[in-house]
Amino acid sequence: MLKLVIGNKNYSSWSLRPWLALRANGIPFEEVFIPLYTDQADKDRILGFSRAGKVPTLVDGDVTVWDSLAIIEYLAERFPEAKLWPADRAARAHARAISAEMHSGFAALRNECGMNLHRPIRPVTLSDDARANVDRIQEIWADCHARYGRQGPFLFGAFSGADAMYAPVVHRFRTYAIPVKAEARHYVDAMTSLAAFQEWTRDGLVETLLIDRFENV
Amino acid sequence: MLKLVIGNKNYSSWSLRPWLALRANGIPFEEVFIPLYTDQADKDRILGFSRAGKVPTLVDGDVTVWDSLAIIEYLAERFPEAKLWPADRAARAHARAISAEMHSGFAALRNECGMNLHRPIRPVTLSDDARANVDRIQEIWADCHARYGRQGPFLFGAFSGADAMYAPVVHRFRTYAIPVKAEARHYVDAMTSLAAFQEWTRDGLVETLLIDRFENV
Repeated sequence: MLKLVIGNKNYSSWSLRPWLALRANGIPFEEVFIPLYTDQADKDRILGFSRAGKVPTLVDGDVTVWDSLAIIEYLAERFPEAKLWPADRAARAHARAISAEMHSGFAALRNECGMNLHRPIRPVTLSDDARANVDRIQEIWADCHARYGRQGPFLFGAFSGADAMYAPVVHRFRTYAIPVKAEARHYVDAMTSLAAFQEWTRDGLVETLLIDRFENV
Repeated sequence: MLKLVIGNKNYSSWSLRPWLALRANGIPFEEVFIPLYTDQADKDRILGFSRAGKVPTLVDGDVTVWDSLAIIEYLAERFPEAKLWPADRAARAHARAISAEMHSGFAALRNECGMNLHRPIRPVTLSDDARANVDRIQEIWADCHARYGRQGPFLFGAFSGADAMYAPVVHRFRTYAIPVKAEARHYVDAMTSLAAFQEWTRDGLVETLLIDRFENV
């Protein structure tokens, strides 16, 4: 069975991405949890799966794939029925472009508003760069909705790899009380209504409480 | 014809990546040069091609793809004969994993040793993070050589999208006089022997001299 090595569901936005791509499509996999921000022993466990030393890592028999986006590309090939990329060539190029934009960009927002599910909801003062990130992301969502909205509630109609990439931003906008423009709000609703997204959120909240109380899950 | 919007060849490592993927495979394309670090007019020209406001951007008829990695994925589909990803499933997953690692990672090295072809060759003092980046990159090159070296001099034997992604690092190692371990040195030789890589390097050096002398190319 596929094995997905992930970090804390409360914090690890990179882990959420391929996890969601799998779960939202009902692809069975075993979850291997390695807590982050702990000690060298846990770091060594991650290195045992991938020399890149990072979560997430996917293990499929003798194939090991690290990095969220590379895992999504791998899953798109391995499970074509999941349709992780849109069938239309231009839409697929668009989906990959915005996925890559998320993958290497929006550093200010990521640094200033780290994913943290159990954080009390309240605003922070954002830098100009982070505000530009917020605007660009909402522009992407609104643009996708205008182009593909008739086909379904996600960025390209049906759930795709691009949704997996943008899912953590929905949490960031919520926990840091970042206003979402009317034309982008439908996307927050679509994501928060997704059963797999809800499952991760519940797991992350419980995990944090368990770690707080027992220092061990 | 394909149109690739790029920045200065001297500085724009992200532009080099898809440019090399095209040129090394003899795929015809028109080059659109927009100088970076100039004024709002040039920024607006970039925004005219892509709302992400970044180079490189590829325009193929009515399809616009931005981001180096998304462009490489697009070219891999559009020109299957170029074999931009290895044919073997495990090797392809590996190529995408290290490409994604480059795409979102090695920030310290990228910040401390920006690509700058005409910089006088001399070392700088690297941070611990940048030194770890250097070690990891050389580990990747050596690992690929051990696994695929019998098939050719590039990371996966023949030139692939992963080589396009790592090409700028070859320039960084050279201009910042960063020592390359014996087991990774073959890769520097392979890249610097590639005609397309040499062409970009010459273009970049000339472009910078022209801009210096005439403030206009």
